[in-house]
Amino acid sequence: MITFTTDFGTRDWFVGTMKGVVLGINPQARIVDITHEISCGDISAGAFALAASCHFFPNGSIHVAVVDPGVGSTRKGIAVKTRNYVFVGPDNGVLSLAIGKHEIEAIHSLENEAYFLKPVSTTFHGRDIFSPVAAHLSRGVQLKKFGPQKSNFVELKWSAPRRLKNGISGEVLYIDKFGNSITNIRGEILGRSPNRVCQVLGKKVIRCPLVDFYQTVPLGKPAAIMSSSGFLEIAVNGGSAEKQLGLKLGIRVVVLSSHT
Amino acid sequence: MITFTTDFGTRDWFVGTMKGVVLGINPQARIVDITHEISCGDISAGAFALAASCHFFPNGSIHVAVVDPGVGSTRKGIAVKTRNYVFVGPDNGVLSLAIGKHEIEAIHSLENEAYFLKPVSTTFHGRDIFSPVAAHLSRGVQLKKFGPQKSNFVELKWSAPRRLKNGISGEVLYIDKFGNSITNIRGEILGRSPNRVCQVLGKKVIRCPLVDFYQTVPLGKPAAIMSSSGFLEIAVNGGSAEKQLGLKLGIRVVVLSSHT
Amino acid sequence: MITFTTDFGTRDWFVGTMKGVVLGINPQARIVDITHEISCGDISAGAFALAASCHFFPNGSIHVAVVDPGVGSTRKGIAVKTRNYVFVGPDNGVLSLAIGKHEIEAIHSLENEAYFLKPVSTTFHGRDIFSPVAAHLSRGVQLKKFGPQKSNFVELKWSAPRRLKNGISGEVLYIDKFGNSITNIRGEILGRSPNRVCQVLGKKVIRCPLVDFYQTVPLGKPAAIMSSSGFLEIAVNGGSAEKQLGLKLGIRVVVLSSHT
Repeated sequence: MITFTTDFGTRDWFVGTMKGVVLGINPQARIVDITHEISCGDISAGAFALAASCHFFPNGSIHVAVVDPGVGSTRKGIAVKTRNYVFVGPDNGVLSLAIGKHEIEAIHSLENEAYFLKPVSTTFHGRDIFSPVAAHLSRGVQLKKFGPQKSNFVELKWSAPRRLKNGISGEVLYIDKFGNSITNIRGEILGRSPNRVCQVLGKKVIRCPLVDFYQTVPLGKPAAIMSSSGFLEIAVNGGSAEKQLGLKLGIRVVVLSSHT
Repeated sequence: MITFTTDFGTRDWFVGTMKGVVLGINPQARIVDITHEISCGDISAGAFALAASCHFFPNGSIHVAVVDPGVGSTRKGIAVKTRNYVFVGPDNGVLSLAIGKHEIEAIHSLENEAYFLKPVSTTFHGRDIFSPVAAHLSRGVQLKKFGPQKSNFVELKWSAPRRLKNGISGEVLYIDKFGNSITNIRGEILGRSPNRVCQVLGKKVIRCPLVDFYQTVPLGKPAAIMSSSGFLEIAVNGGSAEKQLGLKLGIRVVVLSSHT
Repeated sequence: MITFTTDFGTRDWFVGTMKGVVLGINPQARIVDITHEISCGDISAGAFALAASCHFFPNGSIHVAVVDPGVGSTRKGIAVKTRNYVFVGPDNGVLSLAIGKHEIEAIHSLENEAYFLKPVSTTFHGRDIFSPVAAHLSRGVQLKKFGPQKSNFVELKWSAPRRLKNGISGEVLYIDKFGNSITNIRGEILGRSPNRVCQVLGKKVIRCPLVDFYQTVPLGKPAAIMSSSGFLEIAVNGGSAEKQLGLKLGIRVVVLSSHT
């Protein structure tokens, strides 16, 4: 199985073409779109989407992520084998958040043109390099055939949440289609205590309870909730936290340890 | 075969994740997207989309619909077996319009956590309950394994068209991507008579002929036409009835029995 | 394998329904979406998308393109066999640009209702004619079974680039999701010479270098570059040529043979 996470959109023929290339090499490949609607060139959002979804796929899946504003320049392509998956894409950080959750077995640079579609364009390595490499991998070609081993890869820097005297402070990392604003605060570090309150430090300070599901609060009211990605999110029941609370990436969110 | 109808959009990783879950349980499953672009929380639109498309799929298909603003609350998930299909989703009406077109054989509540993805989140039952249940169903697990039988399910109320002295009065139920405005008036109740005229009672009253195909009327002109969903729709040849005529959901449409 | 290129969008149930029809006839069919986001009724854009992508699919693929404002009128459906593919769609030009790149073996009119979904609607031949025909073709039904042979089909007119004294003059044919503006100037006619300069004749005249990849120019600066479709495109590094340069379809682009 091969998954795709890109910023190519579905408006043009780019994604269809990548699938044609894969199926020309391996007609048995199963291809699943994670998303193609990452904002143009937004490597962080692509990295977040892949990290939030990759582990829901069966072992042996090949995850291809292409958010690649540097296509054609000197940045290399890489393939990274972890215990359960192989990750394929440009070495610009887009794979790093997902890989960081798994044990790495090998990192290889993609240099062997025998496995590329030729002529290789300078603008569409998703079609000419990453798709054919993934297709050959899915047919059982060994990782070492694609290029020399490497010892590291480009990693995105993510701000970690900080412990305050009266709670934990994080920030909004990703805003989804519903306007739910996902923070960098993982559920584990919150522990379990009732009556928590969140402060969202946007233009105005908004206070909201930490609840178990959206409809715990009245329609149109904000709530903090453990999102399905494992991170705390700020939501509005039946509405959009992004629009109604004016939330943006980077806005600070504080979980207070008790009512204060 | 498993179909998906949701409001999750394709911008985030939600739909890809659901597919990963299904394929982890049944690698042979065929998954077809009906749509993921139902407006956030619009149960009626989801119900309409599923009802308009479900019967074009082969017998034995499993239809999953998730438009689920009450996720995590007390609303139950259900699976409903009809003669040709199994419908899976929240018991909030989103399945009801499609089911209403088929003979029901059994309704079961989804309660057996052995068939869920664990831990079950409180915000994404599409991934944690409905996808794994559909995948297990597609492998042949019997419906009764998922939970106790029920005698009924939540049904959406749809306004029926009314017979007037001089015709039939209905309303706009759904507006599609082209701006075509689909009403609740089924073709069967119109019968066959030539020279019909429609009145669309928006801000202004618009009169248009009932014709066989879009290009019967001049470019830019409105027409009533039997849509491919079996309902009468108001369209503009080469344009958008929604934009050009200012149509909205609920606007009244009257088919006059003769020129009056 | 069957590919789809349409203007149906993914908001409604139209595309899902077409897939249901195909899989009901041939459960083994592989279906790949090229795109469903062609602008409503934009036959040229559909033709361009199909032509840019069709040859990346394995031999034997069946390409279905439906951008069909004349649905229900007298325009016929056709199936055109080339050496490697079969193209299926309305005979309105949407197939013509792709077919023009291949050697034609046979053109047939789609008239045999035995291979249609009945009743055939007057508004959705994608579902009722083109999908079932493609599905039957994928099961091995011979082309001649679908209707009589024809000697020609409707061809779109495309303006060819012109040779000037000091270069080559073309125009913008297609603008992609990134705002890259693809012209009708193929790479082959440019030849290879360094230090080329492009003039984009929009509201203002913009000069930009012809480079090998986006990041050759500074962030936010325009460049001409050979696109992955084989045509010269105008791009902005890290931005949108459409938005930042105000590019539109039809805007003239001149490649100067030397700095002048």
